[in-house]
Amino acid sequence: MISGVRGTLIDFTGDPFVLGDENSIRVEQDGLLVIEEGKILNRGNYNQLIKHYPHLETIDYSGYYVMPGFIDTHVHYSQIGIIGSYGKHLLEWLETYVYNEEAKFKDIEYSRRAAIFFLEELIQNGTTTALVFASVHPQSVEVFFEEAYKRNMRMIAGKVMMSRNAPKELLDTPSMSYEESKSLIEKWHGKGRLLYAVTPRFGITCSREQLDYAGRLLKEFPGVYLHTHLAETKDEIRLTNQLFPDCADYLEVYEKSELVTNRSVFAHGIHLSDSELKRLSNAHSSIAFCPTSNLFLGSGLFNLGKVLDSKHPVKVGIGTDVGAGTGLSMFGTLNEAYKVAALQDQKLSSAKGFYLLTLGGAKSISLDNQLGNFEKGKEADFVVLNPCATPLLNFRNNSNNRNGIFDGIDGIIDRLFSLMCMGDDRVIESVFISGNLSYSQKRSI
Amino acid sequence: MISGVRGTLIDFTGDPFVLGDENSIRVEQDGLLVIEEGKILNRGNYNQLIKHYPHLETIDYSGYYVMPGFIDTHVHYSQIGIIGSYGKHLLEWLETYVYNEEAKFKDIEYSRRAAIFFLEELIQNGTTTALVFASVHPQSVEVFFEEAYKRNMRMIAGKVMMSRNAPKELLDTPSMSYEESKSLIEKWHGKGRLLYAVTPRFGITCSREQLDYAGRLLKEFPGVYLHTHLAETKDEIRLTNQLFPDCADYLEVYEKSELVTNRSVFAHGIHLSDSELKRLSNAHSSIAFCPTSNLFLGSGLFNLGKVLDSKHPVKVGIGTDVGAGTGLSMFGTLNEAYKVAALQDQKLSSAKGFYLLTLGGAKSISLDNQLGNFEKGKEADFVVLNPCATPLLNFRNNSNNRNGIFDGIDGIIDRLFSLMCMGDDRVIESVFISGNLSYSQKRSI
Repeated sequence: MISGVRGTLIDFTGDPFVLGDENSIRVEQDGLLVIEEGKILNRGNYNQLIKHYPHLETIDYSGYYVMPGFIDTHVHYSQIGIIGSYGKHLLEWLETYVYNEEAKFKDIEYSRRAAIFFLEELIQNGTTTALVFASVHPQSVEVFFEEAYKRNMRMIAGKVMMSRNAPKELLDTPSMSYEESKSLIEKWHGKGRLLYAVTPRFGITCSREQLDYAGRLLKEFPGVYLHTHLAETKDEIRLTNQLFPDCADYLEVYEKSELVTNRSVFAHGIHLSDSELKRLSNAHSSIAFCPTSNLFLGSGLFNLGKVLDSKHPVKVGIGTDVGAGTGLSMFGTLNEAYKVAALQDQKLSSAKGFYLLTLGGAKSISLDNQLGNFEKGKEADFVVLNPCATPLLNFRNNSNNRNGIFDGIDGIIDRLFSLMCMGDDRVIESVFISGNLSYSQKRSI
Repeated sequence: MISGVRGTLIDFTGDPFVLGDENSIRVEQDGLLVIEEGKILNRGNYNQLIKHYPHLETIDYSGYYVMPGFIDTHVHYSQIGIIGSYGKHLLEWLETYVYNEEAKFKDIEYSRRAAIFFLEELIQNGTTTALVFASVHPQSVEVFFEEAYKRNMRMIAGKVMMSRNAPKELLDTPSMSYEESKSLIEKWHGKGRLLYAVTPRFGITCSREQLDYAGRLLKEFPGVYLHTHLAETKDEIRLTNQLFPDCADYLEVYEKSELVTNRSVFAHGIHLSDSELKRLSNAHSSIAFCPTSNLFLGSGLFNLGKVLDSKHPVKVGIGTDVGAGTGLSMFGTLNEAYKVAALQDQKLSSAKGFYLLTLGGAKSISLDNQLGNFEKGKEADFVVLNPCATPLLNFRNNSNNRNGIFDGIDGIIDRLFSLMCMGDDRVIESVFISGNLSYSQKRSI
């Protein structure tokens, strides 16, 4: 069956950090998106395109913005219940809040309740794909994938591997983590739209033997991801260096087990040397920039400009890092990404911001052949944004209040920036997953 | 007429930065607030207090938090329309966006529309008192006060004085700014709950003659405030130093015209020397800490710990600084205040945060005899907060989800912190101004 959505189509055909904003953003003010069997069949000007589909069943979102679904490249579903917990830096945060909460995920019903809530919240925030930490318990991955499968979502997740330096009830062993991960991969990787990420927590909680097992999984299952943490705080780096005295720097801890690949995503990467950045670049690995978390834990300011430096650019996606991040909204996350950049005299335009949420995010997790923009054949995960969703956004963005000066592309770019600064879940009017309407604020639509 | 509100009463009896959180926050889990003629008549435990008022008409907000109304100590109502405008540091921001927008406030109907929207938005965000910049046009102050007067709000505002270094249509002259301010003071200061602030924009736009006129107004009208900007960015400081070569530092620019008093509020104060902080402390002046604005413009990190240092503490309130601030919500503002502190290895607890919004804010604008907590005789401006207002807050904060462990005071403190991190206007269930219900989300209450 073929169906259509009419609205202002906004996506990216290239990288604005390389090509400039104007050469990468694509705006069809009165656009039509044509969907067939969960994929994009066509996109273009409504009046021109509709002629070819005379009987098209079309939902009219005129005045709203239709964008590819957002991609969150680092988030812990097992920490959704402790979001906004007070007063700690990373290592204390883990000990005080995280481990205590994650221990509860031994209970499959507790896990399921969290997974359902988390996935519904993601959708209501316009996030259709995420790279997700579960807990150490295989069942926490099972229920997460079950629930994501029901919703037909493109989700990537994995069981935490950790065998030391955490409470006993949360520890696996290197061989056990290998066996459990392997079973989960065999059962879930590639089932529906689901993908698996081998997920060692980080060097502090993983022995060399365990990291080697992770590397073995990557070799045995070439399509799976590697998802871990890297260089988030100085204390973490210091402790990691103590635990791995044979490694010259943090990245080498992962390199020695062959975990630094073109399917590896490292969360944070705030405090990396030039050498580490260059090696990440050469390996085509990615960093997940998690601004709300980095600020909340006081971890530091991620230097986006340096990481994207054209001599050795590293792929970057945006992560909420809930529970240390303070929200699942990608608007709120971009708000603080902008501010982290501004403090370093860098400018994150709305084109660059939304690129990172869509095509850039897809590239950073090697899914840009499937996701990220409205190219024909890509999976039809997309969101409909109401740029006037709150009283303040309406006051600022409603054309009736702006004397018509903001009716063109410049106005759209400007309004997108206001959504970066002030948007929240109310802006997400509707969400389509695999071409199906999965969520709508106004159920009457 | 006497009326009552039942709910969890939360206010402050002292300064948690000095006394510690436990010795300053006051929580009455099942509380009753008794109001008579717009003032607090009594507060206490519901069951104990209700006996004394057997026929009390009481609104039941059981399970909700009742707090004093929030105080925003620095905001520009004339910039509400340009909130979230892209990519500039302070001086460029003024030239690119602000002056263009403020010029429109020559039109009294434009001003009125903005004033009405701004005041309604303040109320819906739980802000019942604010220290407000209008534009250079006296009529922008007139309509603002007219609309605040209609709503019986405790508002402080003033006409911008600026006679140089801005577009011609926005300039007054020193004598003209004196005369216009004087007329406004005579008409509005003390009318209803309104108060006037003499409002030179900052040294860059004010000659010595104009600053002297501002000082003259302070002397002629001892009850009025002084409201201006100070040490927001390094470029601003450099230019100010060039314009006032006879002054050793920025603060001296204001001191020489006798503008540094116990009724003076200086926005920002990010880049102040120890000497300037000490002189502000000795003068009992205040600083408005505006975290969302400071981050948005990339101005720098306000050092709250240093400013409150017990050897020479300076009074501090919290400002949104809209339009450079990215929202009128005091929750969103505290979220970023927490993060600015965290980046400097400081901890802003929920008690300290909400203290700054209430009693601390009132002290910083010398209104703690009238506002800021539930002491008998104070003005009955208060807000009702729903700690479970959004799906995510409900998931985190609902007692049913927390196995009862968060039912006591610790749970309330913890939930308040979650509101700092994740709250928005949806948390504001109701707002009472002068004892009257001015706003309620659920109109059926």
